[in-house]
Order: sequence, then structure tokens, then C-alpha cells
Amino acid sequence: MSRTALDVLAIGNAIVDVISQADDAFLVRHGLAKGAMTLIDEDQAARLYAATSAGIEMSGGSAANTAAGVASLGGRAAFIGRVKNDQLGDVFTHDLRAAGVAFDTPPATDGPSTARSLVLVTPDAQRTMNTYLGACVELGPDDVEAAAVAGAAITYLEGYLWDRDDAKAAFRKAAADASAAGRKVAFTLSDPFCVDRWRSEFLELIDGHVDILFANEAEILSLYETDDFDAALAKVRGHCAVAAVTRSARGSVLLTDGETHYVSAEPVDHVIDTTGAGDLYAAGVLYGLSRGLDLPACGQIGAICAAEVISHYGARPETSLKKLISSDPAVG
Amino acid sequence: MSRTALDVLAIGNAIVDVISQADDAFLVRHGLAKGAMTLIDEDQAARLYAATSAGIEMSGGSAANTAAGVASLGGRAAFIGRVKNDQLGDVFTHDLRAAGVAFDTPPATDGPSTARSLVLVTPDAQRTMNTYLGACVELGPDDVEAAAVAGAAITYLEGYLWDRDDAKAAFRKAAADASAAGRKVAFTLSDPFCVDRWRSEFLELIDGHVDILFANEAEILSLYETDDFDAALAKVRGHCAVAAVTRSARGSVLLTDGETHYVSAEPVDHVIDTTGAGDLYAAGVLYGLSRGLDLPACGQIGAICAAEVISHYGARPETSLKKLISSDPAVG
Repeated sequence: MSRTALDVLAIGNAIVDVISQADDAFLVRHGLAKGAMTLIDEDQAARLYAATSAGIEMSGGSAANTAAGVASLGGRAAFIGRVKNDQLGDVFTHDLRAAGVAFDTPPATDGPSTARSLVLVTPDAQRTMNTYLGACVELGPDDVEAAAVAGAAITYLEGYLWDRDDAKAAFRKAAADASAAGRKVAFTLSDPFCVDRWRSEFLELIDGHVDILFANEAEILSLYETDDFDAALAKVRGHCAVAAVTRSARGSVLLTDGETHYVSAEPVDHVIDTTGAGDLYAAGVLYGLSRGLDLPACGQIGAICAAEVISHYGARPETSLKKLISSDPAVG
Repeated sequence: MSRTALDVLAIGNAIVDVISQADDAFLVRHGLAKGAMTLIDEDQAARLYAATSAGIEMSGGSAANTAAGVASLGGRAAFIGRVKNDQLGDVFTHDLRAAGVAFDTPPATDGPSTARSLVLVTPDAQRTMNTYLGACVELGPDDVEAAAVAGAAITYLEGYLWDRDDAKAAFRKAAADASAAGRKVAFTLSDPFCVDRWRSEFLELIDGHVDILFANEAEILSLYETDDFDAALAKVRGHCAVAAVTRSARGSVLLTDGETHYVSAEPVDHVIDTTGAGDLYAAGVLYGLSRGLDLPACGQIGAICAAEVISHYGARPETSLKKLISSDPAVG
């Protein structure tokens, strides 16, 4: 691969997380699917917000979190996504740039406000996300410049984009531009319910356009409609150059056509909030791949990044991931 | 004192904190006075924000934090302050109500946006605040209803209000209404630079209108223009019924005309962010006074509340202060 301007160009929903604590009874009372991401409209968001406890606001968005992780590792990352020019849009833009990620998608000047996700963290550190997409509905193929995609070693796309036609068109354009330029396309399945909504299209996409696939256990099981993890692995093998599948505390599996690597999870003293675990695992793997590291090292970097982000509230690293991995004997 | 509808009515600036980490070199580079609260305009706020690292947003405001603390202790608290009807105004309103504080000041519908304070936390857990007052400029005497003040055992006012004429008029009206109704007036000096700006007016205020005074060491020294802590205590004694003076890790001193009580600080394993320490100490003392507890018990509750808030980022309690104090042998 020739040297590119960027290691990773991430495209996704630009979201500010509103994080509050809740118990399981709260989720039941409000009919929320624990551990899932549910799309809600503005009225639902207002009603649910009114019922939540006092919160903290932090920038989020799955692919944006991954871009922030790549930058924290020392990689060159950019993000494409839509905010509005409002207070939360300013927060999102500031935080992403402050993390070292190039972000130049112009904010919307009218229409819905910047997207918010009401993230409810239960005492077991699980997160349940309720997302009002707001200004994300403004993202379309015009926001994706072919030159930007051609200048990135890997273009990383989140499955959440598939829920809207314009964003889906942006996704397709980015994938086509990357392939045309001889670059890699990475894709995360995002959420088991998202997979359930778009199974046949995701299967077709993975077959024809994806080089590097990210999924967690629930997502890969949903994709192949099976309860058998090994059966799901057997099904995905060969459909893309690399598949990286995470299993929470049981670590991850990285597959190619002929190889299978099992990587342990990095131990964490006290898991606080699992939001961003998959996003940061992806950041580590993508960074490793962009540096030409072997798959076990890529998986190990992903594990270290995921361990950092689940040890505190919020979906972006609080410490330099570059420093963290440099002290790891398996990587440094 | 007859039974009132409220234990504490707090009046102050309604602010959302934008918390980020910075080192001492950053403060020097930007000419910021460490540990102080500096008022900045919108342009300065934009420039400084652009230079800060990625942050987290949490509701703040000194008197509002105190009201949240009183409510967390199980007291009945209300707050008067001005936000705008924008995203951060919604966040402030939501968080205060979710904390159990009555908050009914109507938001401004035009004019400056909701106030933000860029809170820079250095590795020594000290906080340096840079506040854009925004919609707080809309607060005036019309926002203070005599009936609300008369219905509160204690009306608590922050010194920060003194920086604007309309807010000062609101302050004076609230103090007069409280006195007229036979209620108590509590006042915090807020910040040594604030004291320096308004020394003679604060001295006059304390003498004539304040029953309960809160100050930290730097503020009381500034008020009496001395370097001698005991001299400052001697000067304040007798000017108000109770003076409660905090000295960080060295605990606090509570004075009346004839009594002096020294209260130790509550030990904290790891101090993360001192923002809100004084606000929560005041919450504890005010709650104790409203329950008719003796001064050492009031000081001990204040110490416990301060210890909770400095053990994490943000200026409001993350755990139930009522539960915390109920397990303390000196209080429960």
C-alpha cells in the first residue's frame, strides 16, 4: 500500500452522549432493550430525558470514537459526519479536533439539532443507548469527497449509517471510492438490532465491498441467524480479508481465510461503563493494520484500547493510548 | 423559626461547566490565575475553548451546586437563576430538577446563550475557572419573588452575583425580603478576586444583612486585607451570627459571637477535582442549620459533602449525601 495522507477515515453519525446512571428497573419501566442502541425521535428523547437522573455530556458517535482512538494511538485520522451549528455541535467539533482528528464536514445551519444519545449505564457497567439522530439526517453522498477517501489507507464505516437512505448512499459512495483507489474498506456491524434490520444488505455488502469486518458476538450471531459462535465464525471466514469479532471479557477472534487468532481481553480492575469498548477495539486493530503489524498484535492493541475506555465513563480515551501500548511487551 | 416550605433557597449564576484537564504550563501560557474564577467574554471563551483538550460537560454554578447538595442530603431546596432556552440551558434545567431542586425561573428566549465555565483541572486537582456569564445577565430583581424567599428558612446568595448590577439588585431584594420575613440570609464570598473587586460593599453587606457567612481562607484574608488567618477570624467574629471558614485539607472553622469550633477535613483517598468543594461544604452546613443541629455537627456534614465532591470530576454529588451522612457516627 502506498503511503497515504491518512491512516483511517471514519464516517458515521456525529453524536453527543448524555450519560446517566440507571438501574434495570428503569430500563424495564421505560421498555428499553438493555445493551442495544434504539433510535428515538425528538419527542421520545424529551420524554426519556425528563425521566433520567442528572447526567454528564461527552462527545461520542461510534466511528468518531474510533477516529479519536486512532489519533490517540498516534495514527492520522479524519472523520466525516454532520452536526448542526448549535452548542452540542460545537462541543462535538471541539472535542474531536482536540483529540487530534481532522474534522471538516460543515455543520448544518438549519434543520434538526445535533444528535444526542441518552446513554443509560446500569450498575453492571452495561450501556443502553437511545439515540435521537437530529442533524445526522443531513449526511449524504456529497459529504464524501473521493480525494479524501483515496488519501486514506482505510475507510471505516459504521453500520448505524444504514438506517437512513442518504447516509447509506454516502456509505456506498465511500466504499466504491476506496475500492477504486486501491484502499481498504472497514465496516462495523454496530448493533445486533441494526443487523437484524439490514441483514441481507449487510451480507451482500460484506461479500462484495468490505475488506475488514468488525462485529461483536451478538452481532455476528444475528448476522448468520445462529446461536453457535463457531458456526458464525465459519460462515464469515473468506467473505472479507479480515474479520475481528469481540466477545467482551472472553477476548476477541481475528480471522483470515487461512488463519484464526484468539486474543485475550486486557484485565481491568473495575469496569465502569462499557460504552465505546467496540469502537476502541476497532481503533486498535485499524491502527495496527495501518502500521503493517500482524493480526495478534493488532488484536492486542485493540484489547488495550478497549480496556482503557471501559475503566471510566464515556466512549473516548482519557489517557494517551500511544503511551499505553508502548509499555506493553506484546506490542511495544 | 416556623416550619417553612423550603430549607434553602439558593440564588446564583446558572452555569454549565466544561471540564478539561490542563497542566500548569497551559495556565501560564494563557495568562490564567490558578485557582481563581475569571470572567471572560464570548470571544475570549471561544479562543480559550479552542485551545483546551476534549472535555466533559456537567451542570454547575456555585449556589446551584449548593442547592443540589442540600437536596441530596434530603433537604428541601430551590434555585433562582437564568439560563437561555438552548441546549445547555436544557441540560442545566434537567440536571437541577433531576437532583430534586425546584427550579422555575423562566429561561430567556433571546439574548446571550446559557453561561459556560471552562474549568481547567490541573494534575494537583486544583480547578481554574473561566466563566462566560451569557444568559446570567438576564437575572434581575423581578426574578426574586418575596413569597418564595419568605417560604425558605435560609436564602443563600453567592458573591459572584455582585459582578452585575441587575443581579446585585436581585441579591439586595432577596436579602431584604428574607429579613422582612424573619428568615436567615446566608452569603458566600465566592472567590478572592471577587472579594477584591467588591470589598467595601461586601463588608457593609456582612455587617447589615448576613446571618451566615461562608468563605475560604483566601477569601477571608482578602476581605480583611491580611495574611494572618487568626486576625481575619477575629475581624469577622460578631459581624454575623455564624461564619464558616474553610481551609481545604486543614478543615474548617465555625464561629459565633462566643464560640469557635474547629472541624477536621474528611479524609479522601484520591482527590480528583476540587471544583464544588466550597459549594458542597456550604450545603452540608446549611442543611445542618436547617435541622437545628449544633455547629460541630453542621461542620462535619459539610466536611463529608466536600469530601464526596472532590473525589470525582464535577461540582455536584454523584452519590446520595443523605446515605453518606447517615453512616457517620458524629452525625447520624
